[in-house]
Amino acid sequence: MSEPDRGVDTPPARLIALDWGTSALRAYLLGDDGAVLDTRSEAWGIMQLPSGGFPAAFEGVTDEWRRFAPGLPAIASGMVGSAQGWVEAPYCNAPAGSAELAGALASAADGRLFIVPGVVQDGGAPNVMRGEETQIVGALAARPDLAERSLLVLPGTHSKWVGVADGRIRDFTTYMTGELFAVLSSASILGRFARDAGRDPTPESARDAFRRGVLASRSAQGGIAPLLFSARSLVLTGRLAPVASLEYLSGLLIGDEIRCGLTGGARPDTLIGDPALCERYQTAFGLFGVDAISVITDAAPVGLWTIAQHASLAGPTSAAAIA
Amino acid sequence: MSEPDRGVDTPPARLIALDWGTSALRAYLLGDDGAVLDTRSEAWGIMQLPSGGFPAAFEGVTDEWRRFAPGLPAIASGMVGSAQGWVEAPYCNAPAGSAELAGALASAADGRLFIVPGVVQDGGAPNVMRGEETQIVGALAARPDLAERSLLVLPGTHSKWVGVADGRIRDFTTYMTGELFAVLSSASILGRFARDAGRDPTPESARDAFRRGVLASRSAQGGIAPLLFSARSLVLTGRLAPVASLEYLSGLLIGDEIRCGLTGGARPDTLIGDPALCERYQTAFGLFGVDAISVITDAAPVGLWTIAQHASLAGPTSAAAIA
Repeated sequence: MSEPDRGVDTPPARLIALDWGTSALRAYLLGDDGAVLDTRSEAWGIMQLPSGGFPAAFEGVTDEWRRFAPGLPAIASGMVGSAQGWVEAPYCNAPAGSAELAGALASAADGRLFIVPGVVQDGGAPNVMRGEETQIVGALAARPDLAERSLLVLPGTHSKWVGVADGRIRDFTTYMTGELFAVLSSASILGRFARDAGRDPTPESARDAFRRGVLASRSAQGGIAPLLFSARSLVLTGRLAPVASLEYLSGLLIGDEIRCGLTGGARPDTLIGDPALCERYQTAFGLFGVDAISVITDAAPVGLWTIAQHASLAGPTSAAAIA
Repeated sequence: MSEPDRGVDTPPARLIALDWGTSALRAYLLGDDGAVLDTRSEAWGIMQLPSGGFPAAFEGVTDEWRRFAPGLPAIASGMVGSAQGWVEAPYCNAPAGSAELAGALASAADGRLFIVPGVVQDGGAPNVMRGEETQIVGALAARPDLAERSLLVLPGTHSKWVGVADGRIRDFTTYMTGELFAVLSSASILGRFARDAGRDPTPESARDAFRRGVLASRSAQGGIAPLLFSARSLVLTGRLAPVASLEYLSGLLIGDEIRCGLTGGARPDTLIGDPALCERYQTAFGLFGVDAISVITDAAPVGLWTIAQHASLAGPTSAAAIA
């Protein structure tokens, strides 16, 4: 990470944007129109902070930038605003868009940092998100055609399927797909064959096993409860290579999420998230006959910029708000 | 554990029966007609053997009994016959009953111990069991009315729903309900509220939360994937006590197993297993309108006795087989 050249020829910095989750802290220096001027990344998620805690992590990751622009406003989204975070930013009720989020920022670091709240959908089947709301704001800013009405899928530890209407998050569902895969791989008997194999499957056998898992889930209309154990029994009966068994499990779990999500004829418009994970989901969606889903990556900095604009934080007009 | 009185007035010992699983070793001294004369229990499951391994565990748990009857035959079922066990007893193909199992015993301890094989149902959705086959043989011996045609449910780490026809295991399905509960409780975010609470819920709030979980699963026709996270979101929105959240999760998972198992109008005849767990399942079945399911406990020693009889191991006629 070289020190950014903040000489006369560089565009002016307008905002520091932090994507601050459970396991990572990603920082962006944004200029006019939210252009990314520089980035930093640390493993300082809220569960693994450096000595000195949140303030030290904040100073450490933004210090170089703020040396050149001491009054630069900063905004963060993600678990940093949870009850286990720096300052709790209470959930906004759905429906919520950039205006509602901007109107409910919490502040930390003596007012030098603003924190975006998560969103709660209360009711019979309550759901919460924290961090994804900002990615969605970013996605809608980048793709205004999605704002009027769309279904967005954000794969991850806790995947979200989010219905958008009139530019706001209207309703959403959570699938614990990524966390289920992590705990079953590491702590259950389903991970034992792959752990014992101690090597990765070939790309071809990984792809085949993943596809088999997706297809098995596709035909399990009542859910995968009676199917989960097949990630072991197929190996025991010589029908699946031990080393590929976790790829099969990944296919089962992602396939189950997609089968549930598509119930009732829903069709997602776009995937938002990590490129490799989105590609995996694209493959799985294809096996359900849902092709050509677009992918939006790096939506967080655009979302943070957009929310900051709504809060009149970024740019020359922001000095008063920060002082 | 007092030394059994093997004096002139005690009935003669016929067989040592071992229920030897992953985490426990239960030993039974059986007399005429399989009557239990004495029992031993050690934490010497195949994953936590004493120094000296399998032979030491076998000698340790049966030593007192064999001192009085050195030629006493012994038979074991469970994971002791798996690839990670003492001697692998390859799976019998379904359909399989006591005759098929008795015809495929493996032997260990220089021929002093016979090991019951598991059962495999091969085909599109393969399934395996090891230990449950012996409990089923025991249940059918105790309840001959179940032999012609019945559906048996054995709740546990890997629950089995077993179709019986003509006295044999015909087909079966595995639900990883117990293991899912264990890994989600201990390793996922769903366990965090209860872990932090550090105390048990009151019996009443536990019962209520369990019932809510079962009822939520009952109405989730496509499976619980979109519902699992409610074990957290209901707490975050103040609708579920943190301390009772794992009872709710237990209800969700058991409810999902039952909803899947009842698909197509199937109706179980009996539960086989641990009394407390069977009672939990009875409650859940009741919420699905399936009442008055009977419970069979301690089926393993009867099953081991029955299989040993088929193999001509037990009783006075067994000496030749053991010599």
